[in-house]
Amino acid sequence: MATEFQLIARHFARPGRPLRNAALGVGDDCALFAPAPGMQLAVSTDMLVEGRHFLSTVAPERLGHKALAVNLSDLAACGAEPLACTLALALPRGDEAFVAALAQGLFALADAHGIELIGGDTTAGPLNLCITVFGQVPAGQALLRSGARPGDDLWVSGTLGDARLALEVFRGRVALAGADFESVRRAMELPQPRVALGRALRGLASSAIDLSDGLVGDLGHVLARSGVAAQVDLHRLPRSVVLAAQPAALQQECLLAGGDDYELLFTAPPALHDAVLAAGRGCGVAVTHCGRIAAGSGLTVLDADGRALPAAWQGFDHFA
Amino acid sequence: MATEFQLIARHFARPGRPLRNAALGVGDDCALFAPAPGMQLAVSTDMLVEGRHFLSTVAPERLGHKALAVNLSDLAACGAEPLACTLALALPRGDEAFVAALAQGLFALADAHGIELIGGDTTAGPLNLCITVFGQVPAGQALLRSGARPGDDLWVSGTLGDARLALEVFRGRVALAGADFESVRRAMELPQPRVALGRALRGLASSAIDLSDGLVGDLGHVLARSGVAAQVDLHRLPRSVVLAAQPAALQQECLLAGGDDYELLFTAPPALHDAVLAAGRGCGVAVTHCGRIAAGSGLTVLDADGRALPAAWQGFDHFA
Repeated sequence: MATEFQLIARHFARPGRPLRNAALGVGDDCALFAPAPGMQLAVSTDMLVEGRHFLSTVAPERLGHKALAVNLSDLAACGAEPLACTLALALPRGDEAFVAALAQGLFALADAHGIELIGGDTTAGPLNLCITVFGQVPAGQALLRSGARPGDDLWVSGTLGDARLALEVFRGRVALAGADFESVRRAMELPQPRVALGRALRGLASSAIDLSDGLVGDLGHVLARSGVAAQVDLHRLPRSVVLAAQPAALQQECLLAGGDDYELLFTAPPALHDAVLAAGRGCGVAVTHCGRIAAGSGLTVLDADGRALPAAWQGFDHFA
Repeated sequence: MATEFQLIARHFARPGRPLRNAALGVGDDCALFAPAPGMQLAVSTDMLVEGRHFLSTVAPERLGHKALAVNLSDLAACGAEPLACTLALALPRGDEAFVAALAQGLFALADAHGIELIGGDTTAGPLNLCITVFGQVPAGQALLRSGARPGDDLWVSGTLGDARLALEVFRGRVALAGADFESVRRAMELPQPRVALGRALRGLASSAIDLSDGLVGDLGHVLARSGVAAQVDLHRLPRSVVLAAQPAALQQECLLAGGDDYELLFTAPPALHDAVLAAGRGCGVAVTHCGRIAAGSGLTVLDADGRALPAAWQGFDHFA
């Protein structure tokens, strides 16, 4: 069986690849790097646990992708440029094929975003992946949750709810045809962090958050930090053709409380409406105007007739 | 039962405490901060798993201390000044008393080193703590594993082997009187990261590493990265009076392959011998000259008569 050091050396050290962003990477007590002059460092950490953030059925390549993607999504929500990451990994066994595939999925996404794995830790234990990502953003220009203002438009990127729909298939509550299942399964297992969009929204968006726990819960964080209220137009929330073919109640559940979307939810003044659309086009990511910010507090979801839904929607809580 | 967000808000957010090192802390998608001009950022991450890095018998305050201490020890080994940390935490239950005590132990050590918890993640799952620490060091002045040169003296801080001796008591292999057990148990559960010593060794030490896996294994990393050999004088290795009262074979095992020491092992030119002693005195940490670096490769441990021990000592491997 491979030892911890052998596993790291074989699959996570990448000798011969020059570091672009870091001065010192894997292999010493610390990694060393510095943001560019005038830049602030943006840092986020996410821990993924089997059965909670991913199913045992996920292919290890996709797990490696997802573990990094959910962290990059946090950088995207701040408008930061990704630089580097660390990976701490607890593995039940020294399973080399699993580690090799995990590393492959992680590095494919890391390379796509030009970031480096600069350090980590590997240990025996129940399967757990903890990634910390580092990005940089011009000082004072990070997108925050606290900047939404009454009158702002509410926007969302991509489509919502497919990851939750896939989960319901795994749970046996919903049946989908093969191609439809593969499509929503990709949304769950291979989320695409909206890094380019986040950067393009600097100077446009007044606030932003990434959707990891479901629209209602995550929008609630923005409203609380900004001290404002919001109205969401349910019929405007963007959804895939697969989700749009489901019963209305299921659509509503997946759109509002789905979780695992990793899309950006953001606000911007109405005067910037066309600039926001242009930013989305420039990144090849659909952006949809789906509501508005108001004075006060609380979230109201309106149906197609403008009637408020019952306030029974809760965000996804990892202890719920 | 407390939800994830309630636990974070109650025990890890510290409202009203101004941030000294970070521009934005817990509560947004990312934390924001910047090293001082001319400084490099030093980053390290460690994951602690129950039964592997700590026993279920540890008090949660001590676990909070240790999880941060082992990370600060990595900063110490680089000579970096600690700035901030993130904590990702998987908990089997939303056990509020446990979380409160864990936070207390972690913050006590964080406050002692003037660092801030700037972000994190909390989830349900088998108990797992993953901390990432951030420090800063003047560009180009970090202590590395790769700088040991033939002729350098080999040094170690503090005493070695007590944590391993405590583990052998928990395993039932060794019996100790109550006060002696408490003493070595403190070494295991409350390691003191040698942060001040690491900073004082900048410009003196040619290489450094922190002892987490045992002297033989960790020194092996220095030798491999530096391309040198070493001789260690077993009788010079510093040990507590409790360990010194144990049979010679057990002493040897604890000193050479103990693990969990979190002392600094470092090298320095002989001309700096007195300066190294003065650096130790200035920090209130004993430093002991315990061997030397030579050309070639490999590690030789010499007994009090200058005879080489059999090369059967192995470092602690988390998959062994």
